[in-house]
Formats: sequence, C-alpha cells, structure tokens
Amino acid sequence: MAVALALRRRFRAVTVIKEEVAKLLELKKLVDDGKSSGQFVLKCPKGTRDYDPFQMAIREKVFSVITSCFKRHGAVAISTPAFELKETLLGKYGEDQKLIYDLADQGGELLSLRYDLTVPFARHVAMNNIKTMKRYHIDRVYRRDQPRMTLGRYREFYQCDFDIAGEYDPMIPDAECVRIVFEILSQLDLGSFVIKVNHRKLLDGMFEACGVPPEKFRSICSAVDKLDKAEWEEVKKEMVEEKGLEEVAAGRIGEYVKLNGRLELLERLTSDERLTAVPSSVAGLEDMKLLLQYCKLFGVLDKVSFDLSLARGLDYYTGVIYEAVLTGDPSKGKEGGVPAVGSVAGGGRYDGLVGMFNSQG
Amino acid sequence: MAVALALRRRFRAVTVIKEEVAKLLELKKLVDDGKSSGQFVLKCPKGTRDYDPFQMAIREKVFSVITSCFKRHGAVAISTPAFELKETLLGKYGEDQKLIYDLADQGGELLSLRYDLTVPFARHVAMNNIKTMKRYHIDRVYRRDQPRMTLGRYREFYQCDFDIAGEYDPMIPDAECVRIVFEILSQLDLGSFVIKVNHRKLLDGMFEACGVPPEKFRSICSAVDKLDKAEWEEVKKEMVEEKGLEEVAAGRIGEYVKLNGRLELLERLTSDERLTAVPSSVAGLEDMKLLLQYCKLFGVLDKVSFDLSLARGLDYYTGVIYEAVLTGDPSKGKEGGVPAVGSVAGGGRYDGLVGMFNSQG
Repeated sequence: MAVALALRRRFRAVTVIKEEVAKLLELKKLVDDGKSSGQFVLKCPKGTRDYDPFQMAIREKVFSVITSCFKRHGAVAISTPAFELKETLLGKYGEDQKLIYDLADQGGELLSLRYDLTVPFARHVAMNNIKTMKRYHIDRVYRRDQPRMTLGRYREFYQCDFDIAGEYDPMIPDAECVRIVFEILSQLDLGSFVIKVNHRKLLDGMFEACGVPPEKFRSICSAVDKLDKAEWEEVKKEMVEEKGLEEVAAGRIGEYVKLNGRLELLERLTSDERLTAVPSSVAGLEDMKLLLQYCKLFGVLDKVSFDLSLARGLDYYTGVIYEAVLTGDPSKGKEGGVPAVGSVAGGGRYDGLVGMFNSQG
Repeated sequence: MAVALALRRRFRAVTVIKEEVAKLLELKKLVDDGKSSGQFVLKCPKGTRDYDPFQMAIREKVFSVITSCFKRHGAVAISTPAFELKETLLGKYGEDQKLIYDLADQGGELLSLRYDLTVPFARHVAMNNIKTMKRYHIDRVYRRDQPRMTLGRYREFYQCDFDIAGEYDPMIPDAECVRIVFEILSQLDLGSFVIKVNHRKLLDGMFEACGVPPEKFRSICSAVDKLDKAEWEEVKKEMVEEKGLEEVAAGRIGEYVKLNGRLELLERLTSDERLTAVPSSVAGLEDMKLLLQYCKLFGVLDKVSFDLSLARGLDYYTGVIYEAVLTGDPSKGKEGGVPAVGSVAGGGRYDGLVGMFNSQG
C-alpha cells in the first residue's frame, strides 16, 4: 500500500485537435527557424527557464516550508537519478506515456528522463525490498508537453513528493496526505484553496453503473480528467465520438460528474441504487466515508470537496485521489489576485505500483 | 573576466587502450544481457545511484557547509535547466565533448544534458547581459564516461560551483576561489589536502619554449592533464606516438612537469631563460607571483602547491587553474584512512567563454 502527494502544475491537452494545431505551429516554427540558419540562438530550451537570485530566494523559502512540513510528518529524504531505464517507466502513465523524454541511443542502456518521482520511488522500494517508508523527495521532473509558461506549466519543473509505503489502518495515510496539503497551502499563504477528493473504485463503479464496458474504464477516466479544463459537452464528444462510448452511458456519467459536496453528497450517493448495485462503488463509498470522518477529526473538512469529476490522469492510482486548486480571494476581483494556475497539488493511492516491479524482477 | 571553482570528482581515461577495453566489456555485457531477454532488470542506470536517507543526511550536511561558505563570500544562487540546446554546449569541452548525453530527437529542438554548470552560467550571463555577478549553483551534471563507483566517479553527480563574473583587480577573484576551496575542505574535515595551482598561459609558454607547434597546444595540454592518473612514460608515449610530437620536445616538457613547489619554484622559473624568452609564460609567471602573494595574505599558502603538471582537461580555461586533492592522514596508513578519490575540487579562469556566446548571438 502506498499513497502519494505530488505538488505540481500539470498540463493536459484539452482535445486532440488542439494538440495537432500545436504540432503544426511547432513545425512552422522549425521552418521559420531554418530561414535564419547559421544564427546561434541564445536561449533556454523550450518550456524551461533559468531562476535568477530573486526567484531562487522565493523557491528556497517555499521548499523550506514544504520540507519542514514533510519532516514534521516523519518523512525522511531519498534521492534517485534524473533518468531511469526506459523499461522502468514503460506502462505506468497511460496516455501520458508519449510525453516522456528519451535519451539518445549512444550505446549501452536505453534511458528516459523521469516523468514523476512516484515511479522511481516505487522502483527504489521494490529494489531494496523496503516494507515501510515515509519519504519525501523534492526534485525536477520532465514532460515533453506543450508548455504554457504564463500559467506556470513547464517542461522541466519541480515536484515535492511525500509518499507513505507500508501497511496501515484504512484511510489513515490518505487522510494524512490531505492534512499535509492543507498545512502547506495554508502556510504558503497563497489565498483560499479547495482540496478535491474522489476515489478510483467509486469512479470505476460509476462507469460500470452507467454502462461503460470495463475495457474502456481507463480511457473514459482520462476523458473525465479533462473536466477541469474543458466543458462537459467537449468531454462528452470525446467519449462518444473518439472513444466509442454509447450516448446514453455518457449522458449518465454527465449527471454524476456534476456532483460535489461533503457528507451530504456521501449520503446521497450511498442511497443511489444504481451505484450501490456495483461492489466497486460500494467499496469506494466506504473508503470515502472513513476519509471524510478523518478529515473532520484532522480539522480540514471545510477545505475538502468530494468531487465526482475528479479523475487524475495517471494510470497507477487505485484508491483515494485528490487535487488542490487555488480559488483566489473573491475580494480581490475575478481572479482573486492569484494567477489562474489551476491545480497546484495532487496525488492518490497506488496499491499496485511497487508490486509491478516485484513481479517483473 | 570570470573565474570558476567546481567541486567535483572527475574521471579521465588513462589511455585510449583502456577506453577500448571498456567499450568491449560493455558490448560483452550487452550480449550477456541479451541472453536473459524478457527479464526485467530492477536497477538504476549505469553510473547512477539512489541516495538512501542516511546518505541524504550526509549530502545535506555537506551542501549546507558549502552553501554557507559561498554565501559568506557574497554569492547569490541561480538555477538553470538540466538540459541545454545542443549547440550551446558545442565546442566548449575539447576532447570531453564525446561524453555529453544527447536527448533523443523527438521533434523540436536538439537537446543535451549539461556537462557542467559553467557553460550554462556563461550562457545565462551572456543572455541576460550581466556585467558583474558572484553566483553559486549546486546541482547535478551528466557525463557519459566509464563510471568507477568505488572511487566516487559517477555518470550523474553534483557539482558545487562558485563563479565570479566581472572586472576586478588582477588575481583577486582567483585568490578568493583558492581561499574558498581551503575553507570548505578544512570545514568538511576530510583529512589533509593540497590545492595545486598552475596557469594556462604559463603552460602555453612552456609548450612554445619546448618546441610544441601552436596547433598542438590543446591536445598536448590534454595529455599533460592525465599525469595525475598515469605515469610520465605513458603520457609521453601519447604525445609522441598518438599526437605526433617530436621526442625532444616531449623530453623537455617532461623536465618541467616534474616540478612543484611554492615561491622558490616561482623564483627558479622566473630565471629560466627558455621560459622568459616567451611572452605568454612571462605573463603567466607574473600572475602566479601575484596569486601566491595573495594566497600568503589569505593564510592558505601552506596548502597550495604550484604544480607544472596541473593542466585541467577542459578547453575553456585561459588563466589560473587549480585542483584540490585529498592526501589523507599519513598516521592512518597508506591511504590515510581516506578513499583514493583523487581530485575533489577544481576550476580556473575562463576569460573568453561568455564572449563566445555574445559573438554568436
């Protein structure tokens, strides 16, 4: 059992069409660059940046707040290489796999830059046969995505990870991770925020209850994941036209993903006959009940939103998932004085990941 | 004008033959690995390692000592991406260029992992038109070399860089860098050490005085650089047989590179008629005189060794060069209780590097 919290800013292509447009613009840029051939361009690689001393001072302050919190919660530090064997990263990220940077084949091993700190942690845990560990790791990760620098989305960026590996009473580590996000975002004083929580088993149960065939669970989940950036109609279109889901099933999903709340939503879903007919959603709802109870005891429930539209993009999550979003200060105008960076932290339970390495080894 | 200090452990192939043997062993390993195909190997990439919490505690302690010293000397932090445009790194490292990791061409820019923090710093200074800066940067660099893990030589390792960019009185920044190495190695308490110093202009003058043709200066310099790992006879063979230097010129170089000392050596060289006939070595000797005077004033002269065999591998140095070597504690036996890691810090003046970017831009 393991739980991950990752503080980061992510970019997800809203639609395949937008991705294609970006690719064409990239090609156009290459052609344009070719015109000024012989000219040396003095720049950082696309999607990356330097930090000057003022920016470094802020970064160090932020990291020190985060590190103190992680240590207060009993985590120790580990460090892993910036690249891994290509095969270590294979089959872990679903549709995001294509965003991994590969190193050139210069003889020897095939290598890729790490995409997150979670899979390298799972590799470390499996390799060293570690049974129990609370660890933090603050380091750079690499994603060959369309950067959106003004929104803080880069190809090279830092993740601040806190993970718990081991066997614990149900939902205790999950609730601790939510509490950690709460402590850090409160202390960093970035304005108001909400921590969305959901459960992969509940999502799977919901898909089953809505009539999604099991082999489409992951791809439909990845479509739901886009709801924080795209309208429902757009996501529905992707489900039906690209992913071949029946219109009626998509319609039912649309009813559920509108829902968010706290204990009252839990109550409503627990008495939803379509959901309670599916074992997976019953298991998910039981976990969510316990999680929300712990959140209340930990004094963080009023920052938590149980949100059925939260899906998280990565394949490896198996239980509770969460994502923190800055909501700004309404008294400071539309954006609340905070840039619209969207999600600033996210994570979830990934029970099978370490086992994937053990069974492969 | 700029001066760099880099604390690091470097590996230089002793001879081309050893390199070829290593390549063959690598190929053999690939073939052996192929035999067990289908088996997933649970490991870090070759030449890299994880740090467990105990190792991290040591690393953090060491970095905190180094950072404090850098800050005490007035440096501010900057940070640059782990990869650069391939062309940014081109033509900066001489024979070591082949050790650079390239990223795969996945469309878009051609990128390489940084080989050091110095060239990215020069790129940053040129790009932002910075006139004066004392900066430190502690981060990972990447070298696709034969690793020797037991000697602490990895393909991914940390450099702790302190650089001074700007115009200053002669040898003041150079002497400060030597003082910084002294402070850090003293405080880290790694046993006794010596800081070897030399001068690229003196080396060039010496080569000229010995009859080396100017176009062979860099390649002969890179052969001299191997003297800390190889016997003179081996290096001489490389000069004569591989690099086509006349036997008599190599013989003369052999006489000089045996020499090391302090003020008495400076005196001896200043009255060496062959050297004083060459303007470049006169300029180098004048700088060295000033440097050793400042080292005395800074209280570090007894740790300094003016060593004519010190050459430093990289192409970009133009003035004073230095390298710190742990010498261990003789009372603790042959190795002095310290693993034979060799050079632990090195650097030098590189007056032309920022200008290379400015003229290209």
